[in-house]
Amino acid sequence: MTDLNDLSLSAVSDLLETGEISSVELVEANLRAIEKTEPIVHAYANVLAEEALDAARAADAEIAGNGRRGPLHGVPIGVKDNIYTKGIVTESGSRVMAGFVPDHDATCVENLDRAGAIIIGKTHCHEFAYGVNTPPSRSPWNMDCYPGGSSIGSGVAVTSRSSFGALGTDTGGSIRVPASINNLVGMKASFGRVSIYGVVPVAWSLDHVGPMTRTVKDNALLLAGMAGYDPKDPTSADQPLPDFCADLEAGVAGLRIGVERDYFFYDGLIDEIRASVEAVIAEYRAMGAEIVEISMPELAITQDALFTIVLCEGSTWHRKLIREQGDKYDTATRAIVQLGELLPATHYLAAQQARSLYRSAINGAFREAGLDAMLWPTMPIPTARLDMLNAPRADGYPDTPVGSMCHHTFNANLAGLPALSVPCGITSDGLPFGFQLTGRAFDEATVYRIARAYERAHDWHQRKAGVIEGM
Amino acid sequence: MTDLNDLSLSAVSDLLETGEISSVELVEANLRAIEKTEPIVHAYANVLAEEALDAARAADAEIAGNGRRGPLHGVPIGVKDNIYTKGIVTESGSRVMAGFVPDHDATCVENLDRAGAIIIGKTHCHEFAYGVNTPPSRSPWNMDCYPGGSSIGSGVAVTSRSSFGALGTDTGGSIRVPASINNLVGMKASFGRVSIYGVVPVAWSLDHVGPMTRTVKDNALLLAGMAGYDPKDPTSADQPLPDFCADLEAGVAGLRIGVERDYFFYDGLIDEIRASVEAVIAEYRAMGAEIVEISMPELAITQDALFTIVLCEGSTWHRKLIREQGDKYDTATRAIVQLGELLPATHYLAAQQARSLYRSAINGAFREAGLDAMLWPTMPIPTARLDMLNAPRADGYPDTPVGSMCHHTFNANLAGLPALSVPCGITSDGLPFGFQLTGRAFDEATVYRIARAYERAHDWHQRKAGVIEGM
Repeated sequence: MTDLNDLSLSAVSDLLETGEISSVELVEANLRAIEKTEPIVHAYANVLAEEALDAARAADAEIAGNGRRGPLHGVPIGVKDNIYTKGIVTESGSRVMAGFVPDHDATCVENLDRAGAIIIGKTHCHEFAYGVNTPPSRSPWNMDCYPGGSSIGSGVAVTSRSSFGALGTDTGGSIRVPASINNLVGMKASFGRVSIYGVVPVAWSLDHVGPMTRTVKDNALLLAGMAGYDPKDPTSADQPLPDFCADLEAGVAGLRIGVERDYFFYDGLIDEIRASVEAVIAEYRAMGAEIVEISMPELAITQDALFTIVLCEGSTWHRKLIREQGDKYDTATRAIVQLGELLPATHYLAAQQARSLYRSAINGAFREAGLDAMLWPTMPIPTARLDMLNAPRADGYPDTPVGSMCHHTFNANLAGLPALSVPCGITSDGLPFGFQLTGRAFDEATVYRIARAYERAHDWHQRKAGVIEGM
Repeated sequence: MTDLNDLSLSAVSDLLETGEISSVELVEANLRAIEKTEPIVHAYANVLAEEALDAARAADAEIAGNGRRGPLHGVPIGVKDNIYTKGIVTESGSRVMAGFVPDHDATCVENLDRAGAIIIGKTHCHEFAYGVNTPPSRSPWNMDCYPGGSSIGSGVAVTSRSSFGALGTDTGGSIRVPASINNLVGMKASFGRVSIYGVVPVAWSLDHVGPMTRTVKDNALLLAGMAGYDPKDPTSADQPLPDFCADLEAGVAGLRIGVERDYFFYDGLIDEIRASVEAVIAEYRAMGAEIVEISMPELAITQDALFTIVLCEGSTWHRKLIREQGDKYDTATRAIVQLGELLPATHYLAAQQARSLYRSAINGAFREAGLDAMLWPTMPIPTARLDMLNAPRADGYPDTPVGSMCHHTFNANLAGLPALSVPCGITSDGLPFGFQLTGRAFDEATVYRIARAYERAHDWHQRKAGVIEGM
């Protein structure tokens, strides 16, 4: 008999719909997986066993009486620990927030609660999502390798099959990087699509919250449950919310996909990933999409611009906490926060000017070439050994693994456009990796549609990490 | 016979429409006034006599053949010298820009050119519109007193009747302050309403360009000619452009006007202006408007927030020029530009956070109290002696005149809402002053309508400064 945990979120949602399983069975299945995998992978900061079971019993009763609220009703999910959950400890991976219990939900959590989703636990993250300290989570694909961050626990939980889907946050790649490393689908939607009210900020002009799942459809369902205009978030966009699944199976015939090669297919991209992503492009062409070569020299400024903005906005948010409780920060996080205080405003504003140039360039490229999406790798390397993250790259390319990992992701936060990481291979060393699709502002539906056309022809999303295979 | 120069812009437009006068006659009238008043008031950096006469002849020919393009066709106007005019020297009041000839028009100038308006000259401004040096322009209302800035020449030209209307720019009050001092109507429209492409920046998140005229209708006509979405300006708003004059005579019965007293009617407001603005409020009530008392404690942060943002954005724009040509800057401008380079990014961002709070507060007040506009003085003092601008105020209030002059204007730049200064009195010393109306975003039409209801019952706009009376 199939383990329920091996089914996708949409598959278990269908079984809930037909009454073949109950929400309590799903939560119990997740809890069994957690019991087996957590001693090894440490995905969760906090497992909410009793709360989730209570919520599942209530969901089952409501479904029996009134039917389901929608596709997420009764489905357990994980929530990154820098996202406010009312009455539930939310520590953002930091001793500074030890024992902090929010008195309200983040809007995305409130939306999911209204949709009937159940929180199975809070997942580990790097301290304040800065990505510099070392959380306890380990990758079931290779225990010696970095599982990606800062949404590290969400990535590990979903790939370990102890969660059907989880929320991450993404300021420079923190959803897409762990999605790529953990063989998952991860979406950073358009800036303003999902409210960031109640999400602990890294850099408010770049912050996003979004879904990490095993399949494209799961991702679309979870995004639909989180998204929507929120007057409590001044960066929230009052945009119509389409059905992200409506055209999921419509294929790519006639769609135009842009490919930029100078920056995205640079020398730091390893051969195995390059070949796989080129094969993805060839497949799309074979499926009837038009591949359009484009040029965007402004990509060269995206790394410096994003780092500068993150340092300045982050340090503004932390300026009171770091003075009052600086001793509780991890040394690496503290150094970064203090560094940001030294930057002059003119540097910050020059970075924002550079960002405007890049944004004009990519929006111009979409418009002038009439593109439906652009495609590039999610990362130039699959991941790296935990003890070598800041060492020179083993293959001799002049960069560190940590430096390389964000080469392909920063740009989408600067542009505010939707960007989805989709699994597309596993290296000869057994490490998964993905490609990225970027779409027009607020056109996540087309991004999902294109991603699904590839996924339908492949079984990457069904591959299971060796460590959990026999569990 | 009435001097054409004493007529309003809309009156001469009507005479052009009926064929009673020609565009050449209008330009010649302006040039006669310039010849008489310029040796005393020095409003113009550059009078374009031949160019304007050529344009007027072309306009007359076109009107005779095809009729008028619209109400601005054939009407001469002044343009502040920090606004790009193709082929015409544009020096922004600075030796740094000496002899600079733009190769394109600012979009607002391009729009006015398309509407058939004629540029009679470029008007003086403070160096780079910073408002700290001393341009040569003098007020015909009192030669010893400051004529207002930074749109100093535009204010002096229109009040001296050597121009029917002129363009100013406003980052913290630089249209409304000289409008108040010079007995004029001055509009800083909604942020994004008028493109700032081709306008030399002060602080790009606060900069506006707008019309200065003698009457409300003149102002609405000139704004309509300048405004509209511009893809070349990333801050331009793609909003519909209504007919600003459609409801101009509709009165105020049933409209709701908000009045905040703690900040706007503070101790620094002199009695004569206080009494006049209270009388304006009483008149609106008598005309059927509902006066709603509101509270906005967030106003207290507007001065510091705006200064910080101006310093940081301004110094970012000047960072290259000040290194290469620092010796050509006026000492006071240079000091301010260099000061801005010392501010940390965290201060800039804290100021932007404060700005967000204020913006939420004023938009919330509009929404919750169902207001059509808010009303307050334009300035707490009429103006001050040129040699006492930075001295303690003569009346003992603990501030300088320069410090006081922006007490009522900064907030509208932070909020991005339309703000109009309307003449409402002349002190016993013979110095004009005005009140300010602020409206909902992109609802300039209602602001004009309310202003017109007051103007219709008063003749302030017909008063002429003593110095030019006999000319």
